[in-house]
Amino acid sequence: MTQARPPSTSNLNPRQELRQLVCSELKILLEQENWSGAKVILLPVQPADIAEAIEGLPEAMQALAFRLLAKDEAIAVYEELDPNVQQVLLQDFSREDVRTIIDQMSPDERVKLFEELPAKVVRKLLAQLSASEREATALLLGYQPETAGRIMTPEYLSLKERWTVAQTFQKIRRLALTKETIYSLYVTDNQHCLTGFLSLRDLVIAQPEQIIGEIAEPHVVSVHTDTSQEEVARLLQRYDFLALPVVDAENRLVGIITVDDVIDILEAETTKDIHTLGGVQVGDSHYFQSTILSIVRRRAFWLITVFLITTLASLIIKAQEQLLRQMIVLVAFMPLLIDTGGDVGCQSSTVVIRGLNTQSLRQYGVLGIVKREAMAGALLGLILGLGAVAWAYLLQGNLLVAVVVGISLLLISILASAIGAALPFLFSWLGLDPALMSAPVMTTIADVFGVLIYFYLAQLILRF
Amino acid sequence: MTQARPPSTSNLNPRQELRQLVCSELKILLEQENWSGAKVILLPVQPADIAEAIEGLPEAMQALAFRLLAKDEAIAVYEELDPNVQQVLLQDFSREDVRTIIDQMSPDERVKLFEELPAKVVRKLLAQLSASEREATALLLGYQPETAGRIMTPEYLSLKERWTVAQTFQKIRRLALTKETIYSLYVTDNQHCLTGFLSLRDLVIAQPEQIIGEIAEPHVVSVHTDTSQEEVARLLQRYDFLALPVVDAENRLVGIITVDDVIDILEAETTKDIHTLGGVQVGDSHYFQSTILSIVRRRAFWLITVFLITTLASLIIKAQEQLLRQMIVLVAFMPLLIDTGGDVGCQSSTVVIRGLNTQSLRQYGVLGIVKREAMAGALLGLILGLGAVAWAYLLQGNLLVAVVVGISLLLISILASAIGAALPFLFSWLGLDPALMSAPVMTTIADVFGVLIYFYLAQLILRF
Repeated sequence: MTQARPPSTSNLNPRQELRQLVCSELKILLEQENWSGAKVILLPVQPADIAEAIEGLPEAMQALAFRLLAKDEAIAVYEELDPNVQQVLLQDFSREDVRTIIDQMSPDERVKLFEELPAKVVRKLLAQLSASEREATALLLGYQPETAGRIMTPEYLSLKERWTVAQTFQKIRRLALTKETIYSLYVTDNQHCLTGFLSLRDLVIAQPEQIIGEIAEPHVVSVHTDTSQEEVARLLQRYDFLALPVVDAENRLVGIITVDDVIDILEAETTKDIHTLGGVQVGDSHYFQSTILSIVRRRAFWLITVFLITTLASLIIKAQEQLLRQMIVLVAFMPLLIDTGGDVGCQSSTVVIRGLNTQSLRQYGVLGIVKREAMAGALLGLILGLGAVAWAYLLQGNLLVAVVVGISLLLISILASAIGAALPFLFSWLGLDPALMSAPVMTTIADVFGVLIYFYLAQLILRF
Repeated sequence: MTQARPPSTSNLNPRQELRQLVCSELKILLEQENWSGAKVILLPVQPADIAEAIEGLPEAMQALAFRLLAKDEAIAVYEELDPNVQQVLLQDFSREDVRTIIDQMSPDERVKLFEELPAKVVRKLLAQLSASEREATALLLGYQPETAGRIMTPEYLSLKERWTVAQTFQKIRRLALTKETIYSLYVTDNQHCLTGFLSLRDLVIAQPEQIIGEIAEPHVVSVHTDTSQEEVARLLQRYDFLALPVVDAENRLVGIITVDDVIDILEAETTKDIHTLGGVQVGDSHYFQSTILSIVRRRAFWLITVFLITTLASLIIKAQEQLLRQMIVLVAFMPLLIDTGGDVGCQSSTVVIRGLNTQSLRQYGVLGIVKREAMAGALLGLILGLGAVAWAYLLQGNLLVAVVVGISLLLISILASAIGAALPFLFSWLGLDPALMSAPVMTTIADVFGVLIYFYLAQLILRF
């Protein structure tokens, strides 16, 4: 299957083309009411791809397609579906279907669905769950969103120190299907406190008669239920673990977080960072699924803020009307100066913000970074400044004015680089997100300083 | 250990504080030549944290600290070290040490180190490797950088269809230590072609006398050696796999890629995206480790490009000197207009670029997205435009001029949103990185259109 490589007519890669093929074939077969055909083409397809195919169907067909799946597969596919489609299907299911599917979802995936549903529906669904699943779900829902407690699963495997390796294998064999992972195993004492860690690889290598307490690693990296999900993701990335144990304030093991959830968390955090950098506020829902009004709300705050700061620039310009009237040529170079300042500053803030977020800046001092950026800004300002002198002289023939433009550009580049590099550190130090130093904010700051420097130099050099 | 929570005096989280503590304690113990003490404090520490502590030591102490580690641990720590420190240590090692450590690194980590070393050193090191490791390394080095072939490891476990589960377990027990993972197992035929997949979990549940060919899953998702590493990362994320098999053109299994490498790839790709969005070009080395000159080179290209485009804006303004001379008040609002245009456009391009990169835009049409963004731009332009009318009237008292400013702002917002949303699609369609539609590029485009619209409206409404 994976070797099929149809001639590429678009920018899609072979796997994406394959997915689209499945989706359109599924639709045709369902329209022809060829149920067995539809079942057959879905057989070799991964749950995530079936979920995408179902999402691509008209709403009326979604429940139809879903019913074709075998029970085990149905649950795997349901977990992969978009929350909107999950809700649509929920309304179509019989009471019995709902109970089965929701009950068999893994607790962390179930909580993700519940977060999207109205409280009334959640209460009804909770009541239908089996006692153990209800308890697991309520436990997770009891923690704050975006913490380890909320995203963990209580379906882990815990071992006792006194067990032998052979006993443990029997236990694992019995429980393998009901647990999220069997590759990371945790040792707990009688109070259910976390005392050790063991990988299934360690267990495979060990002799059957060895005792768990002797072969387990006593130094376990764990997180607390209130650790942020971003920190959890960073730890799993740092240590290349497949799972992390979550403990409560008394060091009792309450759940684990597996690596597959972490990649999704990192992606969501990255989207948040990139949106913030672009001046778009974080929202509850997916940007492209939001209503126009909520999009406007997410974008208006920063626009209005920078608008208000930029009015400063108009005040400064207004105050210099006399100068401008006599030297109208100065106006032509304003966009060049304020833009370049914004761009150079934006480059510096971008690299510093990213460095802070990936913690790759930890070994450098704030002052060192700011100095280096200012130096880079000076060199870039020199190159662009010389270009600006040439261009300004070419355009209006006055060498003095050209020199004013060039020197302004140099100074603005240095200042903007230094500000762009320093402010993210200040934000981070104040406990704010460094990414708030977004492109729009940087542009505006460069504007205000840009016109100030430009007019001051013009007055100084052109002697008004 | 993980429960230690010293009172937080900084913005560091407990685990970061712990790491810093280890680092400074290690330094003190080494200075006191207390080798046994240094050994003891490193015992409960994870390899990634030991690596960070060593990176934080003065160069002369790094080799000293490294020699304290037990052999197995030394290799794990060496793999986690920064390539610069890896090189420093290499020079300090005896010939025998080098052979041992390089030989026992996993092939994918070794290739990462070799990529950073001079070709001469690589040749010498390759010659010292054992035959099998040399072959594995040469295989990986034969593929293009950033492809599946380059990042895979040939240390996977492959099974034969005719084996029983019991036989397979014996095999796994024998080979567990030399393989990168034993949790994902691949079935191959006599030509070494990939025919099936089995997880260790499946194997644990199976009966000892069952045959591998009967329980393996025949539909395996695999990638080719020339698949890009970003695509590999996306597939592992999509399907929640722990590893992906890599096959050559004849479908022969040549390696696997494990999930821990993928998170690092995704982070590197994100850094690339964010830098591109901020107008910084991708470089060979880590931004903060580059020389000032190479930084300037990475930043100059886009600055010069947008500088050249912005000269258009000065041409337009120069052509309107007559208008400006009569209506000098118009100048005061130029920064407001061109900035807002740039900011609104930057928001639109940011969300579209991120949507394209995470493939969360696949179900929406280009036209639909551009229309929605233009509508959001219209609403935002209306809000800001009304503010601008009020501010302009307040500042200079001429209602007509204020209206010109307001309408210009509205039109610029709509246009910039539409352009910001459309151009990333165009770039992607041309096979370019959509992130090239960076904040600096957007600002510049908004500039040129901004002054055009502003002056045109001014002439029209103020009737010059």
